[in-house]
Amino acid sequence: MDLFDNINPLDYRYYGRSAADFELLKQFLSENARIKYQAKVEAALVKVLAKKGICTSKIAEEVEKAALAVTAEEVYAEEDKIRHDVRALANCIREKVSEEARPFVHFSATSYDIVDTASAVRFKDAVEKALLPALFDLEKTIMKIALREKETVQIGRTHGQHAEPITFGFAMASYVSRLGSRIKAIESAKNNLPGKFSGAVGAYNASSLFFEDPLEFEKEIMQELGLNASISSTQIVEPEPLVDLVHAVVSCFGVLANFSDDMRNLQRSEIAEVGEAFEAKQVGSSTMPQKRNPINFENVKSFWKQYMPRMNTVYMDQISEHQRDLTNSASQRFLPEIIAALFLSSKRLEKVVSKMSVDTENMAANFEKSRGMIVAEPLYILLAFYGHPDAHEEVRKLTLKAQAEKKPMQELIPHEKSLVPYLKKFSKKQLEIIENPEKYTGFAVQKTEKIIAHWKKELKI
Amino acid sequence: MDLFDNINPLDYRYYGRSAADFELLKQFLSENARIKYQAKVEAALVKVLAKKGICTSKIAEEVEKAALAVTAEEVYAEEDKIRHDVRALANCIREKVSEEARPFVHFSATSYDIVDTASAVRFKDAVEKALLPALFDLEKTIMKIALREKETVQIGRTHGQHAEPITFGFAMASYVSRLGSRIKAIESAKNNLPGKFSGAVGAYNASSLFFEDPLEFEKEIMQELGLNASISSTQIVEPEPLVDLVHAVVSCFGVLANFSDDMRNLQRSEIAEVGEAFEAKQVGSSTMPQKRNPINFENVKSFWKQYMPRMNTVYMDQISEHQRDLTNSASQRFLPEIIAALFLSSKRLEKVVSKMSVDTENMAANFEKSRGMIVAEPLYILLAFYGHPDAHEEVRKLTLKAQAEKKPMQELIPHEKSLVPYLKKFSKKQLEIIENPEKYTGFAVQKTEKIIAHWKKELKI
Amino acid sequence: MDLFDNINPLDYRYYGRSAADFELLKQFLSENARIKYQAKVEAALVKVLAKKGICTSKIAEEVEKAALAVTAEEVYAEEDKIRHDVRALANCIREKVSEEARPFVHFSATSYDIVDTASAVRFKDAVEKALLPALFDLEKTIMKIALREKETVQIGRTHGQHAEPITFGFAMASYVSRLGSRIKAIESAKNNLPGKFSGAVGAYNASSLFFEDPLEFEKEIMQELGLNASISSTQIVEPEPLVDLVHAVVSCFGVLANFSDDMRNLQRSEIAEVGEAFEAKQVGSSTMPQKRNPINFENVKSFWKQYMPRMNTVYMDQISEHQRDLTNSASQRFLPEIIAALFLSSKRLEKVVSKMSVDTENMAANFEKSRGMIVAEPLYILLAFYGHPDAHEEVRKLTLKAQAEKKPMQELIPHEKSLVPYLKKFSKKQLEIIENPEKYTGFAVQKTEKIIAHWKKELKI
Amino acid sequence: MDLFDNINPLDYRYYGRSAADFELLKQFLSENARIKYQAKVEAALVKVLAKKGICTSKIAEEVEKAALAVTAEEVYAEEDKIRHDVRALANCIREKVSEEARPFVHFSATSYDIVDTASAVRFKDAVEKALLPALFDLEKTIMKIALREKETVQIGRTHGQHAEPITFGFAMASYVSRLGSRIKAIESAKNNLPGKFSGAVGAYNASSLFFEDPLEFEKEIMQELGLNASISSTQIVEPEPLVDLVHAVVSCFGVLANFSDDMRNLQRSEIAEVGEAFEAKQVGSSTMPQKRNPINFENVKSFWKQYMPRMNTVYMDQISEHQRDLTNSASQRFLPEIIAALFLSSKRLEKVVSKMSVDTENMAANFEKSRGMIVAEPLYILLAFYGHPDAHEEVRKLTLKAQAEKKPMQELIPHEKSLVPYLKKFSKKQLEIIENPEKYTGFAVQKTEKIIAHWKKELKI
Repeated sequence: MDLFDNINPLDYRYYGRSAADFELLKQFLSENARIKYQAKVEAALVKVLAKKGICTSKIAEEVEKAALAVTAEEVYAEEDKIRHDVRALANCIREKVSEEARPFVHFSATSYDIVDTASAVRFKDAVEKALLPALFDLEKTIMKIALREKETVQIGRTHGQHAEPITFGFAMASYVSRLGSRIKAIESAKNNLPGKFSGAVGAYNASSLFFEDPLEFEKEIMQELGLNASISSTQIVEPEPLVDLVHAVVSCFGVLANFSDDMRNLQRSEIAEVGEAFEAKQVGSSTMPQKRNPINFENVKSFWKQYMPRMNTVYMDQISEHQRDLTNSASQRFLPEIIAALFLSSKRLEKVVSKMSVDTENMAANFEKSRGMIVAEPLYILLAFYGHPDAHEEVRKLTLKAQAEKKPMQELIPHEKSLVPYLKKFSKKQLEIIENPEKYTGFAVQKTEKIIAHWKKELKI
Repeated sequence: MDLFDNINPLDYRYYGRSAADFELLKQFLSENARIKYQAKVEAALVKVLAKKGICTSKIAEEVEKAALAVTAEEVYAEEDKIRHDVRALANCIREKVSEEARPFVHFSATSYDIVDTASAVRFKDAVEKALLPALFDLEKTIMKIALREKETVQIGRTHGQHAEPITFGFAMASYVSRLGSRIKAIESAKNNLPGKFSGAVGAYNASSLFFEDPLEFEKEIMQELGLNASISSTQIVEPEPLVDLVHAVVSCFGVLANFSDDMRNLQRSEIAEVGEAFEAKQVGSSTMPQKRNPINFENVKSFWKQYMPRMNTVYMDQISEHQRDLTNSASQRFLPEIIAALFLSSKRLEKVVSKMSVDTENMAANFEKSRGMIVAEPLYILLAFYGHPDAHEEVRKLTLKAQAEKKPMQELIPHEKSLVPYLKKFSKKQLEIIENPEKYTGFAVQKTEKIIAHWKKELKI
Repeated sequence: MDLFDNINPLDYRYYGRSAADFELLKQFLSENARIKYQAKVEAALVKVLAKKGICTSKIAEEVEKAALAVTAEEVYAEEDKIRHDVRALANCIREKVSEEARPFVHFSATSYDIVDTASAVRFKDAVEKALLPALFDLEKTIMKIALREKETVQIGRTHGQHAEPITFGFAMASYVSRLGSRIKAIESAKNNLPGKFSGAVGAYNASSLFFEDPLEFEKEIMQELGLNASISSTQIVEPEPLVDLVHAVVSCFGVLANFSDDMRNLQRSEIAEVGEAFEAKQVGSSTMPQKRNPINFENVKSFWKQYMPRMNTVYMDQISEHQRDLTNSASQRFLPEIIAALFLSSKRLEKVVSKMSVDTENMAANFEKSRGMIVAEPLYILLAFYGHPDAHEEVRKLTLKAQAEKKPMQELIPHEKSLVPYLKKFSKKQLEIIENPEKYTGFAVQKTEKIIAHWKKELKI
Repeated sequence: MDLFDNINPLDYRYYGRSAADFELLKQFLSENARIKYQAKVEAALVKVLAKKGICTSKIAEEVEKAALAVTAEEVYAEEDKIRHDVRALANCIREKVSEEARPFVHFSATSYDIVDTASAVRFKDAVEKALLPALFDLEKTIMKIALREKETVQIGRTHGQHAEPITFGFAMASYVSRLGSRIKAIESAKNNLPGKFSGAVGAYNASSLFFEDPLEFEKEIMQELGLNASISSTQIVEPEPLVDLVHAVVSCFGVLANFSDDMRNLQRSEIAEVGEAFEAKQVGSSTMPQKRNPINFENVKSFWKQYMPRMNTVYMDQISEHQRDLTNSASQRFLPEIIAALFLSSKRLEKVVSKMSVDTENMAANFEKSRGMIVAEPLYILLAFYGHPDAHEEVRKLTLKAQAEKKPMQELIPHEKSLVPYLKKFSKKQLEIIENPEKYTGFAVQKTEKIIAHWKKELKI
């Protein structure tokens, strides 16, 4: 198949064309990987059968070897004949082993013993070996910038309006923290993914034919694969652990989307505090050669818009009639995309953030515009503290006056007779802040350090 | 790329492996198609430039030929260098033409003059040439069954409970009607998709450098492509016409999902009124050889669960800042999937419905179970009509009695003295219905015919 | 009930506390209205029964009078006893009429003959009498500003970056157009809402006991109420017409959200091109007395976030098993909220937009910042036109040079020897644009006029 | 306000009309509660100010008393004047205290120090005192039925088709487990809700004017309220902990919806294994007096459809520009509804499940229908185990034969010569299962007991 005959852009454009991403992700998230992991579960089953004395260990080895040799192509060819995907896999393995070994392939298993268990292992691997490393890289890169810029004064913005001073590092630290919490959530959720080996309706009907304690049998297979058994299962594992993982992934995506929106806005022509690095040959616009567009931040936001709503699918897939219906089968085949999408967005962000230009000159210039108004908050609070009976209202009027007269507040303050008695009570440090609002950054520097320290410890990085 | 290295199941499993579907859909919905359509718009532009005397018609022909020869592969290779997809396309065309022709490639265009216009043409083509024919086929197949079974008595069900009699054809006719309304909605929406040629911010800045009436220029390009120009545009066309199309597609999917749910339920072991045809070699379950599962109906429902929530993405993509931001770019690349998914589900349903077995014996048997209770409704209504002061309550109590005594209502009715005076007033036809509830199908047969006739006329089939 | 004991903010805060909105909306969207409309349908039924000679016209009048007198309170009290809402309504009416009239109340009807028909009438009324007038007011207000500001030059923005010049009126006109298209969609959808009178399973079982042509009977009831009958129905009307209405409403909300986002961004401290009018006593922030926040635009965006996803509910409610299940009953009771929410947002926007301050000074100042770069596009296009073999690349480099040397492009252009031969070919008008980029607004003024004229005609305003 | 003038059905119908639910929920989830909790935070602030020596403890007491006395009504009246809700609250408290105390009301606080902190406390209370008790009740009720019916044989169903035997208690146990896991998730999430006292942009700008360690100051206020401080905050707390809570609530709702769907299906006329208890006076249908509809299960499913999609709103609200924009303000006011809705659905389910009738006769009768086929699975597995080279295929053909000849498998098996040699190897217990498939329930009974024991321990019940 020609790459560009694909319909899905992840395949033909985002994942499919980056050699490094492709080589990494296809091991877990491609259809080849899906079948490889299912074969791995079939192998683990026979291994435990041998341990339990149901078959010889020679048979187990034979089946394992055969399982590892199966390809997606042959499984699909067999499925074309018999119209059943997991039975097709079993048939392909059976064809590769001795007659003696055949009965033990897929022995006592129902399809979803294989499918759900394999999904748990491969999603766990995908998260451990691809997604989390990418998120850790991004986290470390943002940490670096947060620390580097911890003292770079920036005007804080609420409602898109200038508010009180912060530092740029402090703003970055809030993303360190939110991303950190999502990394923890993803880690915890991937460790909770269970497998199952409880048969067609979850009651161990088949395995009970052979084992006194079929739960023990199930447990041993799971141990082979590094999983726990689902506390309860029907034909399928309980859906909620996987729902929790996708929630963790989707809510992490939300943090990246918020970060990207912030950077896009800081890159606006009028604000221009940060910028995506631009390659020499890169074209910004097909018709406006001068444009420097935040296309990577836009891309991450756009991916979020594509993948976030799929959580609804996951919530709908919680509902499966009785011991299961199959209406979650096709829809769950799309889940690997969500993990791939967050991985790709993390990598993209890491790359662009690590090279992102921070324009401290513009930051200072933007700050300067509000220098005359920022003082309103500390002034009102200090006046209140020193006994002014109606400080908020008094200062509100003063800001209107400053706007009307187009003067900075600092200039007006000493001339407001009603304020003078209170101003005299101000401490030296307090007065300094009124006169130099860039010093009104509160605890921004220390808090930045504390946040980074907290997450370095929590994430062990 | 190995097909099974893909992540998206549409690509590796559903669309990518059915030769006929693949050959049809890739013409419109693949990435190759995307670029082919964009090249077509570039060609139309130069054609109109020639008409307007901006360049020679020889140049137009040269550019058209070059545009048609461009491949996705070379465009992507060029994009790798310059990091801009539409400029890459323009470069690829330019490389194939004479130096004299080069300036007229992409002349005065902004990227989204090409992108949005090309999307409109290809979505229109995909709907006209693939999706609608598939929906028409499905519609005709359901019509056929509706007419064939218009007199097959079936118990109507509300709340999953037996209610009043209908015919199976009547039940099918309601899907004929709902599907018919969605076909009309899809047709109307695809005819409304506009293109644009209004430049980088929609104000015809560039084209105004050359044309007295740049709207006329835009209109001529659109005519070349069979489109109307967007009434208003920024860098992009107004999003709403496309939003309307996706809504029509998604709400059509809902009708198919409802139909599939109904068929799944009618296929339950205890109901067994319909069945998916099963191939001789098909395996129902990897472990339960006796199973006959409604996997195709389940698949359609599952597809609906996957694609319906993407409407949220489309609604979010309505929002684009100022003259546009790019956060709808990646997300819109996924739109072809939705059209492909409805196409595939329509084809699948048509195939399974055309061979679906209808078990009239079981229908009759299920009807029989409620024969004794169905009479409650006509009895209560007729009693009321003939003057009984509290008919509903009286009949409600009689049903409780029938349940307690495990007798059919028909048996009890003549012995209820309080009813006798009213029963005497019943017409012959009315009495007949009380005694033979299978005749209580109301207007089901005639309504079935009317619905089919209505939609044959509306849809011109 | 104390207003503030409510949980839903629409009830206690947004709708419930504005006297005018409350008085208007409660007529259609409150629970009182719901029951009033259902009683109206019960009255229409008996009216037609009288026409058909089933009962006397005296009885019809008696029932009509009784129906209009029923209150929600008594219906709920009755429902508490019998646990069925529509039967409770019927009982309440029956209690108010003579014994002779009683049998004809709710005669041959199933609950959803009443419920779905009443919903169609009241949603139609709500849209006609509340929502559309509000949207028309908003549309006219935006039209007014668009015309007033049609020549006010503003820098167009794509990706949040300065792009090419437009006028502020032109930017507003694009909202006139998008809102216009949604008004049309809402109008069309509300006119398509059908009612039904086809009984418990849609086959006219009950009415067929009395009427030769039960479709005619249904039609007459619908005519009484100004509706068409659903082409096909089960226990319920086909869901798609209502789905279409909600789609029209939700997609209209998207236009308002986009508009609000744009205004919020234009109100940013660094951009400051528009501003929400502020009342003298209004407090911007509890702690920052100087703040002027775009809270109304933020509110509209926030409402959109709350209501847009509810479309998923509507799509899920398309699925109803067999002749219906009741899982759409509670969920559909929430639909009036969506209409109320769009109404409230339209009113809010209209109010704030009509008083919105437009800061043309800041618009000019922002434009000025990019004056030196805007010229890139027309320059590149004209160079290409006049035969430059590589205009885009040449100009791209020139922009880098301008940035490096911190000079406006205009200054550099005459000194670029390679350009001189081409510049000589430029027409006077073309040269003027290169020198005065504020003239590079293309067709913005004329297009603004055309858009307004188009929609005035389409919407008959 | 008349209750039935409300638009939202939660207010006028579900929550507003049940005295017990109303009295409980309004304490946490009404607007009165919202303001009461905010006043509580204002009181906690001044208490800590006194501890820190900023004001006297007499002032703290005075403010606390005033705060507790404030009503929603007066706050709204004040807000009408000044157009700012939290400042209105502060003003109302200030009006009730001495001039000396006034400056310390809301001292150094920003609105969202109050709003977000109050939300955390009240959501925590609502979950602890209303939602969790309701969920625990439901959990215990399902546990009771699971244990009671642990040995009641039921046919397990996959794809809506009869599969292998389970027990009804085992089926219930799977809901015990899934509900148990969601209770744990809700518990954990509510304990993670943080508050904040870090000022207008999260950098402790204001509190740093007075405190050496403003984090210590924040921590003490949080301790007063039983919360932790957000690890990082801007104007608002990190959104993710609240997102996690809503996810836990929504995914718990999914478990209830799945349970309800299962019960609805088991209540189908043809299956009839369970039934909602019906009150003597209850009306099933306005026109079909015989109907017994699963309206409570339908209602829970319908609520799920209404509330599940609101998770999209919550995910969208993760995005807030820079130190916050206000577009999450209105939308978050709707969050209490989701908690109320799950509470109401839990209560409803508990009530209906505790009285649910289980029809073991019908269960046995349904089982009987598949008695002849169930044996296929154990037969195929045992044949395979005892060396049959192609057991699955052999048994598959035998099932086709059984269907064709309309005979139970058990009858055919002994006559299949090819099977005899293997049958001889079967153990006694294995043969017994082949002959008596109702014994093929595997480990269902023991697993039921284990699941209940597990969750009793985990949930400490």
